[in-house]
Amino acid sequence: MSIDQRLAELGIDIPTPVAPVANYVPYVQSGNLVSISGQIPMKDGKLAFEGKVGDSVSIEDACAAARLCALNIIAQIKAACAGDLERVVRIVKLGGFVNCVDGFGGQPQVINAASDLMVDVFGDKGKHSRSAIGTNALPLNVPVEIDALVEIG
Amino acid sequence: MSIDQRLAELGIDIPTPVAPVANYVPYVQSGNLVSISGQIPMKDGKLAFEGKVGDSVSIEDACAAARLCALNIIAQIKAACAGDLERVVRIVKLGGFVNCVDGFGGQPQVINAASDLMVDVFGDKGKHSRSAIGTNALPLNVPVEIDALVEIG
Amino acid sequence: MSIDQRLAELGIDIPTPVAPVANYVPYVQSGNLVSISGQIPMKDGKLAFEGKVGDSVSIEDACAAARLCALNIIAQIKAACAGDLERVVRIVKLGGFVNCVDGFGGQPQVINAASDLMVDVFGDKGKHSRSAIGTNALPLNVPVEIDALVEIG
Repeated sequence: MSIDQRLAELGIDIPTPVAPVANYVPYVQSGNLVSISGQIPMKDGKLAFEGKVGDSVSIEDACAAARLCALNIIAQIKAACAGDLERVVRIVKLGGFVNCVDGFGGQPQVINAASDLMVDVFGDKGKHSRSAIGTNALPLNVPVEIDALVEIG
Repeated sequence: MSIDQRLAELGIDIPTPVAPVANYVPYVQSGNLVSISGQIPMKDGKLAFEGKVGDSVSIEDACAAARLCALNIIAQIKAACAGDLERVVRIVKLGGFVNCVDGFGGQPQVINAASDLMVDVFGDKGKHSRSAIGTNALPLNVPVEIDALVEIG
Repeated sequence: MSIDQRLAELGIDIPTPVAPVANYVPYVQSGNLVSISGQIPMKDGKLAFEGKVGDSVSIEDACAAARLCALNIIAQIKAACAGDLERVVRIVKLGGFVNCVDGFGGQPQVINAASDLMVDVFGDKGKHSRSAIGTNALPLNVPVEIDALVEIG
């Protein structure tokens, strides 16, 4: 099954890539590696989630935010591949940051919502290395930011 | 001296690689680069350290936790090299995160315990670039998490 | 215009590379990629900025600190290129960390001061992917730390 077929079966529409919020570019390719800028939970040009996990943001909403970050990463990958997601060789790494209260230890659960999407969409090629880190603050007060390193062919 | 001989001389047993705590893989190879997932201070299947530096965790314990993260990184490198640590060309980068109280500035000292182990074990090939960052929260409330980028042959 | 001419026109002197504050090296090259250790706002061997954004550090000072980190990154790139900045193919990624109070969301604005310098100095080759993250603590209580991944020829 092609990745586009899998996306259709999963009912996933890849969104328009989100424009950077500052003076950088959304991705840079070097050799076969594509470094993707930290993606935040933007949807249709607006922030879909805001706040801190363990305070105003529930685990469920944090997971939905992480999944949205992953969807925005896939949108950037698609742009880097000139529209052809079959060129993805491997999702090499996700770097996940969770804006949370002190002592919160559930970052792996939150970032899993992004990891699950990668494996759902790309299969074995979507299995990645990962870091999940807590922070006390993120840009625009989003609950989750995720960047990525991807090998393409 | 081989790396295995050096490990024996240092009295270091490389542990069994720690299984990921969520839906990702412990390392991914792309070309000659291996990206290793964030390692936490697990020992014999259990968390050996828990809590925040400057609060319930002393600098000494934080250093021991960082060294344990580094040992778990070496375990993953060994798996990525199919058991042959001589294939390590260079430890390219360590990314160290320290769960600490506000205003704590001793992350370099803590992460040094990991850096020292890399140089002890791999000699000049163990000399790496590095970031040391503080955080207010880490997965499972561990005091230290470290990920790595390694070149292998 | 050469990069050295552009630096002269911008009135920028590339400083002496800052020595690591602990047991690591300032950069490691692997293939064409150079990983540069987290740089902090050191100037002439001293910390130029200290403290937390939103508390003792203003946005303006945080931006000046971020620019200084970027200048120190360029100093390391120059060393990695044996003095010849024309060998820079692309600034692949900046990883920016801002020591800030809870709820601060202006990391993109702060890290922009570093991003702007990269584009001013390297032009299109300076356009990079990026993550901007908040933290509650950084080494030596600096307000900003930035690391980088650079492709050189």
